[in-house]
Amino acid sequence: MLVKRLDKRLCEPLAVEDFVVQSMPDASPTRWHLAHTTWFFETFVLARREENYRPANADFQFLFNSYYNSLGEPFPRARRGLLTRPTVAEVFEYRHAVDQRMARLLNSLRDDDSQETARVVELGINHEQQHQELMLTDLKHAYSCNPLWPTYRQLSPGVDTTPARTSGWSSFGGGVVEIGHAGRTFAFDNERPRHKTFLQPFEIQNRLVTAGEFLNFVNDGGYRHPGLWLSLGWSIVRDQQWTAPLYWVERDGNWHEFTLGGLRALNADEPVCHVSYFEADAFARWSGARLPTEAEWEHASTGLDVQGSFAESGRYHPASVNGDGAGLAQMYGEVWQWTASPYTPYPGYVLPSGALGEYNAKFMCNQYVLRGGSCATPAGHVRATYRNFFPPEARWQFTGIRLARDPQT
Amino acid sequence: MLVKRLDKRLCEPLAVEDFVVQSMPDASPTRWHLAHTTWFFETFVLARREENYRPANADFQFLFNSYYNSLGEPFPRARRGLLTRPTVAEVFEYRHAVDQRMARLLNSLRDDDSQETARVVELGINHEQQHQELMLTDLKHAYSCNPLWPTYRQLSPGVDTTPARTSGWSSFGGGVVEIGHAGRTFAFDNERPRHKTFLQPFEIQNRLVTAGEFLNFVNDGGYRHPGLWLSLGWSIVRDQQWTAPLYWVERDGNWHEFTLGGLRALNADEPVCHVSYFEADAFARWSGARLPTEAEWEHASTGLDVQGSFAESGRYHPASVNGDGAGLAQMYGEVWQWTASPYTPYPGYVLPSGALGEYNAKFMCNQYVLRGGSCATPAGHVRATYRNFFPPEARWQFTGIRLARDPQT
Amino acid sequence: MLVKRLDKRLCEPLAVEDFVVQSMPDASPTRWHLAHTTWFFETFVLARREENYRPANADFQFLFNSYYNSLGEPFPRARRGLLTRPTVAEVFEYRHAVDQRMARLLNSLRDDDSQETARVVELGINHEQQHQELMLTDLKHAYSCNPLWPTYRQLSPGVDTTPARTSGWSSFGGGVVEIGHAGRTFAFDNERPRHKTFLQPFEIQNRLVTAGEFLNFVNDGGYRHPGLWLSLGWSIVRDQQWTAPLYWVERDGNWHEFTLGGLRALNADEPVCHVSYFEADAFARWSGARLPTEAEWEHASTGLDVQGSFAESGRYHPASVNGDGAGLAQMYGEVWQWTASPYTPYPGYVLPSGALGEYNAKFMCNQYVLRGGSCATPAGHVRATYRNFFPPEARWQFTGIRLARDPQT
Amino acid sequence: MLVKRLDKRLCEPLAVEDFVVQSMPDASPTRWHLAHTTWFFETFVLARREENYRPANADFQFLFNSYYNSLGEPFPRARRGLLTRPTVAEVFEYRHAVDQRMARLLNSLRDDDSQETARVVELGINHEQQHQELMLTDLKHAYSCNPLWPTYRQLSPGVDTTPARTSGWSSFGGGVVEIGHAGRTFAFDNERPRHKTFLQPFEIQNRLVTAGEFLNFVNDGGYRHPGLWLSLGWSIVRDQQWTAPLYWVERDGNWHEFTLGGLRALNADEPVCHVSYFEADAFARWSGARLPTEAEWEHASTGLDVQGSFAESGRYHPASVNGDGAGLAQMYGEVWQWTASPYTPYPGYVLPSGALGEYNAKFMCNQYVLRGGSCATPAGHVRATYRNFFPPEARWQFTGIRLARDPQT
Repeated sequence: MLVKRLDKRLCEPLAVEDFVVQSMPDASPTRWHLAHTTWFFETFVLARREENYRPANADFQFLFNSYYNSLGEPFPRARRGLLTRPTVAEVFEYRHAVDQRMARLLNSLRDDDSQETARVVELGINHEQQHQELMLTDLKHAYSCNPLWPTYRQLSPGVDTTPARTSGWSSFGGGVVEIGHAGRTFAFDNERPRHKTFLQPFEIQNRLVTAGEFLNFVNDGGYRHPGLWLSLGWSIVRDQQWTAPLYWVERDGNWHEFTLGGLRALNADEPVCHVSYFEADAFARWSGARLPTEAEWEHASTGLDVQGSFAESGRYHPASVNGDGAGLAQMYGEVWQWTASPYTPYPGYVLPSGALGEYNAKFMCNQYVLRGGSCATPAGHVRATYRNFFPPEARWQFTGIRLARDPQT
Repeated sequence: MLVKRLDKRLCEPLAVEDFVVQSMPDASPTRWHLAHTTWFFETFVLARREENYRPANADFQFLFNSYYNSLGEPFPRARRGLLTRPTVAEVFEYRHAVDQRMARLLNSLRDDDSQETARVVELGINHEQQHQELMLTDLKHAYSCNPLWPTYRQLSPGVDTTPARTSGWSSFGGGVVEIGHAGRTFAFDNERPRHKTFLQPFEIQNRLVTAGEFLNFVNDGGYRHPGLWLSLGWSIVRDQQWTAPLYWVERDGNWHEFTLGGLRALNADEPVCHVSYFEADAFARWSGARLPTEAEWEHASTGLDVQGSFAESGRYHPASVNGDGAGLAQMYGEVWQWTASPYTPYPGYVLPSGALGEYNAKFMCNQYVLRGGSCATPAGHVRATYRNFFPPEARWQFTGIRLARDPQT
Repeated sequence: MLVKRLDKRLCEPLAVEDFVVQSMPDASPTRWHLAHTTWFFETFVLARREENYRPANADFQFLFNSYYNSLGEPFPRARRGLLTRPTVAEVFEYRHAVDQRMARLLNSLRDDDSQETARVVELGINHEQQHQELMLTDLKHAYSCNPLWPTYRQLSPGVDTTPARTSGWSSFGGGVVEIGHAGRTFAFDNERPRHKTFLQPFEIQNRLVTAGEFLNFVNDGGYRHPGLWLSLGWSIVRDQQWTAPLYWVERDGNWHEFTLGGLRALNADEPVCHVSYFEADAFARWSGARLPTEAEWEHASTGLDVQGSFAESGRYHPASVNGDGAGLAQMYGEVWQWTASPYTPYPGYVLPSGALGEYNAKFMCNQYVLRGGSCATPAGHVRATYRNFFPPEARWQFTGIRLARDPQT
Repeated sequence: MLVKRLDKRLCEPLAVEDFVVQSMPDASPTRWHLAHTTWFFETFVLARREENYRPANADFQFLFNSYYNSLGEPFPRARRGLLTRPTVAEVFEYRHAVDQRMARLLNSLRDDDSQETARVVELGINHEQQHQELMLTDLKHAYSCNPLWPTYRQLSPGVDTTPARTSGWSSFGGGVVEIGHAGRTFAFDNERPRHKTFLQPFEIQNRLVTAGEFLNFVNDGGYRHPGLWLSLGWSIVRDQQWTAPLYWVERDGNWHEFTLGGLRALNADEPVCHVSYFEADAFARWSGARLPTEAEWEHASTGLDVQGSFAESGRYHPASVNGDGAGLAQMYGEVWQWTASPYTPYPGYVLPSGALGEYNAKFMCNQYVLRGGSCATPAGHVRATYRNFFPPEARWQFTGIRLARDPQT
C-alpha cells in the first residue's frame, strides 16, 4: 500500500536511537507511532473480524493503545519514551505480521460483509497518514533538543529562492452557505454533516504570511506588547519567554531557523511556520486584520485544487509562492492555517458508536481548527472540509497564518 | 446609588477577617473587590476628567488594578490575599473619598461633555455589579475551605419545598435569526454587534436540570465512565478526584450541600448548581441530549421577562419551579446556564479603544459562554444578550444546566 | 505569666487583618500561633488532667493541631491562611478560657501528682516562646509581600550607629569535651543527653559577620560563582534568582533593608541577617574559613553570659558590637548562627513517649542546627545547649553567620 | 584495562534502544555514562597534558560534562535522554579514540612528570567504576518502567536458596577511635583525613536485614503509622503512595520482586534491597533499634576482609548468608548500608583545587552516607573508609539495612 511505502521512506534516514526518544509529552517516539498504527488495524479490524482472535502480543494491546479508554487504561502518554522494548526490530516484525494478516483478510472479503470492514480499513489508512505527519513533527522536535542540530535529510530542493508575491485579498459576499462533508467518499466524522451556516461578507488574503512579515512583527516589539495578545497567550509569552516562532534561533544578530535539513538562515519569502494560535492571533491584530473562521476558509476554498507541498515532496519545509498575486494561493500544503474557530461539533453531529467514537469528539474543547494541510501531510490526505485541531499554545506542528478581514468600506 | 446599597448589604454579615482571605487564585478577597471597583471609577472616570489628577493613594493604582496591562504591571492576582494593608477600614475610606468626588463630578456634568463620561460611569456600575456577584461566590468558596462551615446569613426563605415540575421541551424552527445587542441601551462590547446567524431546528428544555436528576447521574456511575466525558474533563475528574458537584458533601450515605446558609441536606427539586462545563456536558451526553448553543439560548429567550431569583432576593441559592411545565421557565436567575459555545467575538466585533479594550476581548480563548444570570447576580444586570464566560473547569460560580436536543423525528 | 505579657505586647500594633494572612506555607498567621499555643496547653495539660475533659471547642482540636499525627490528621499547614473563622476575637476568648482553666489547675496542684504536669507546663511555656519568635518572623515575611512596606512599630533605638569592631579569632585546643544538657533544669529532649565528643583544635571568630562584609561578597560576584556554593544551594540561587540576603532591596544603586520598622538604608556595621545556610556556607568559603560545628560553638560558649538583643528589647533587628575585639562577643541574641552540623539525635538520645515524641525528633533530617538565639527570641529562652534547626534554604528567620577555621599554622 | 573489560561485559546484553533511555532525572542513559567517563579522561588527563589539545569532538565537551560548572555550563541533566545523537556507535568510536590516546600517553609517562597524571588516571578509573554501578542501577530503573519487565540477563546463580542465619549482635566498647583514610593508596578526597572521633559503646547486627524481616514490617502496617517515620519521609510515603520497597510487586496476594533477571517471587532470606533512608530509619525504629553511624560502621569493620557479592559475580542481586551467626557478616557487597550519618566533610578536610574540587564536596548537604558496596559495585572499588552518599529518598540503588543499637543494660 502507498501508506506503507511512505512509512518506509520516512524511516530511511533514521538511526535506531531516533526511534526511541520522546522529547515532550505531546510528542511520541517514531517507534511508538509505527506500533500504534499497526495496533489500530489489529484492534479495530482483525480482532473484530476473527472470533477468538489471538493478538500478535497481548502486552501490545496495552502498550500501544493511545487514548481509547473504552478499550482499557492506556499506557501513560508521557512515558512512551521510557520503553526500551519492544525493540525497533521487534516493532517492524509486529508490523509485518499484522500487515500479512490484513492482506489475507482483505483478499478474502466478500461483498456483503465487507462494507463495514472496508470503512474501518479506510479509517485506519487515514489514521496512519496522520501519524506519518506526527512522525516528522515529533522527530523535528526531538532533534531540536539536541545542540548538535542533527539533520534528518537534505531538503529538496533546499533553500527556496522564490520571492514571495505581493499580498492581495479576495472578497466574498457571505450569506447562507454550506460547509462540511457530504456523500460517500471518506471523511472523518468531525467533518459531517454538511450543513448551512451564515457568513457575513469577508476578505481573505491571497497567500500565507511570510517569515519576513512576521520578522517585522518581532522587530516591532510584537512579543513585548501585552495589548496585542490574548490573556492566556500573554501568560505563555512571559512564562516561556517566547521571543520568536519555535525553531527560530538568533546568532550574532542574524535569525536562523532549524529545519529537518539542519539549521539555516531564515528565508524571508517562505511562509512563517511553527507559530501558535496565540502568535497567529497577535500577528493578525498587529496587522489590523484577523484570522478567518473555518467556515470562511472552507467557503473560500470551494473549487480550488488540492495542490501545494506535501510530505512526498521531500521538501519538509513550506515553499514560497510568486506570480502576480491574483487569486488564492497556498490554500493547501506548506503550513496548516490557524482559524479563529474553536473546535466544536457541527450541528447535527453524530458520535460514532463504540471505541471509535473516541477518535475525534472527545477533544472538542480548548482546541482550534486548522485547515489546509502542511508540507508534512501525506498527499491526498486533506480536502476542503478537513478539520485539524490543536491547542492554542501548540507550536511544534507546521502551523502558519493566513489573514482575513471584514470588508474595507 | 442602588449599587452601593447592595455593596453595603452584602458586607453586613462579614467580620473583618472575611474581607481578607483569598482561597484560590481565581477568587479575590472581598476587600480587594471593594477597592478594585472604586479604583475603576477613579482610573477611568476621575483621572480622565481632571487634569493633573492626584490619586487618593498612588500605591492603590498598582495594588487594585486587576488586569489592565496597558495601565502598568498589575499586582499579581494570586497574591491578593497576602496584603494585610490597606486595612478594611482604609478601603472603606478610600471608597468614601472616591464616591464623594464622583458625586461632585456627576453633579457638574454638562450636556456636551458628558456623554462619554456617562457611558463609562454606566460601565463602572455594571462592572461593580459583576464584582458584587464575585464577592458572594468568592466568599462562599473561602467559607467552604473552613471545616467549621461558617454561615454567611440565614437564607431567605430557607429550604425550598416546591417540587420541581415535570420536564418538557420547547421547539424552535431555526433558520436565519438575529442575536446580539443593538440600540443605545447599555450592553457590554462583547454583546455587539447584533448580527445574523443560522440555526438548525432545535428543542430546549422547559426548566433547569435538578439536583435530583444530577444525583441519578452520580448514582449511575457518571463520574466513573470516561466515555461520557471530554478528554480534558476526564483528566480533571481523575486528577482532582471529582465525584459530585462542588459543595456536595456526603455524610453517612446522605448527600448534603454547602450553601451560604451553611451545610444542609441536598434538595432534589432545586436546580443543580456548581457544576463545571465538563460536568454539564457529560450529564447532557448521559441524558441523550446536549447543551444549547448560545444562539439557540438567546433565540429561545426572545420575549421572555427577566425574572427569577437574583442577589437582592436574599436567597443566595437557586429556587425550584413548579406548575404544569408548559413554556420555558427559569431562563433567568437561579443559576448561570452553560452553553455549548466557546466564547468568541461576534462577526464584526469592534475592540473598544484604550485600556477598556482589555475588558472582555482578551479573554476570548478557552472559555465557554453562560447565559441567564444567577441567584448571586444583581437584579437588572442581565438581559437576553448578556454573555458571561468561564473556563470549562470552573465550578465556584452558581452554574447549572439546561438541556437542548435536535428535533426528535 | 511573663509569656502572656509578651504575647500581648507583640500583638499591640496589629490590625485584625494582620492576624489572618499566611504569606507562605512555612509561615503561619498570627492568629494561628495564638490559638495553637493555647491548644498545646489544652491538649497536653488540661485534657490529660481532667477525666472526660470537654474541650473549649471540639473543632479547634483539629484546626490548631500543628503536626501531631498521633492526635489525628492535622489541618493542612499550607491552608492555615484560608480560615476566616474563628475570628481573632474568638481566638482571644479561647485563650482566655484556657488560661483560666490552666490557672485553676496550677493552683490546685499538689506535690505528688504535679511533677509530670509541671514538666509539661514548662514545655508549653517554652513552646509558646518559640511561637512568639515565629509570630515576629512570619509577620515580617507577610509585610514584606506588600509593596506598601508596612511598619510593625518604630524600632528601638532605631538605627544602630555603633561601628563594628575589628574581627579577631579565639582559639580552642580541642580534645574530648562534653556537650549537651544535663541536670533537672528545663531543656528540650533534643539537647540531651550530655555526652562526650572529640574536637580537633579550632578557632572561632570573635563577632558576627557584618552586613558590610557580606556586601563585599555580593560585590565580588559571590552570587554568580558556582564554585563557592553547595550544589543544592547553587540550584536555588539560580531558580529563585537570589542576588542578596532576603529583605535586601536595591534602589538606585543603594542597598536598603526591610525591617519590622520599615525599609531603611543598609547599615554595614550591623550583623548580616536573613541568610540561608547556603549563603552562610558560600560566604565562609569565599572568606577562606568555614562555619563552626555545633559542638565547637557550644564548647566555645562555655561560661559566657546569655546576653544580647532579645525580643523584649523592642529592637527587632540585630545590633552591632564595638570595643577592642578581645573575647567572644555576640554569642547570644542578635541573629541565630548557622552551624555546619546537620540536625541529628545525640548519642543515647531517648524519644519522649506519646505524642510529645513528635516535638523534635521527627524533624532530624535535612535540617541544620543554629545556635545562640536572635533579636526575636524571648529573653531567657535560649542557653548554651539550645539547638534550633531549619532547612538549609530557610531565610525568613533572623539568621546570620559566625565563622570558624582550623588553626592557622 | 580491567575497567574496560567490565564495561564491555555490562553492555553485552543491551539492545541499542537500552542505551538511549533516561527513566528519571536521577538516572542517565547507558550511552551517557559511557561517553561521560571517556570525557573525564579526555578533560582531566589528555587536555591537561597536551598543549593546544584538540578534543575528539568539541560538542562533547559540553554534552558529556556532568556537573563541573567551572568547565562551563553542563547540558541539563534531566534532558540527557532527549539526545538521539551521537549514536551508540559514535560513542563507542569516541571511547576507542580516547582510549588509544590514553594508552599512548601512559606509555610515554616518565618518572618526574607522571605522578600527578597517574593520580588523575587512578581517579578516572575509580570514577568509571562508579558509573559502571550506575549503569546497572539506571538500567534496572528504566526496565522497571516497562510493563513487559525486560530481562537484562539470567542471574547467576539464580535464586538464592540459602536460609538466612539467625540474627545476632556484636558489641564495641567505644572511646576515642580513628576513622578515615591515611597513606598513599587511593581514596577519594572525602575519605580524608584520618582523624579521631569519640564513640559511645554500641552494638551492631551481625548480618543485613532480610526481605522477610522487612515483610513483617510491611504486614504490621509499617507504611501506615506516621509515628515510625521522619516527617519528610512520611510526606513522601503519602505523596508517592509507598507501600513496600521499590521493585516489590504484589500479585494475587503474593509479593514479587523485579530484578535484573526479571520478575520473580520474593525471597525472604535475601537482604532487603531498594529501600530509602526513610524506610531504613522507620524499620529500625519499628525494630527498637537504630541505624549505625558511619564512624560506628567503619570502626566495626576494622580488620574484616572485603568480600561479598560484587558486580563481577554476575549475580546482580544480594545473596543471603547462613552459618552460625557469630561475627559480622555481609559487611561488604550485597547492598549499600544506610548509616545514620549525614554526609559532611571530615574535620580538616581539604578541598582539591580546580574543577576536581567539584567531585565530592559540593554534594555535602541533605545526603546520607552509605557504606560497604553492593552487588552492582565493581570488585576492588570499595574499602572500609569508602563513603557513598545519596539523598534520603533515593531507592533505585541497591540499598539495604544493617541495624545498630545502644548497649542493652
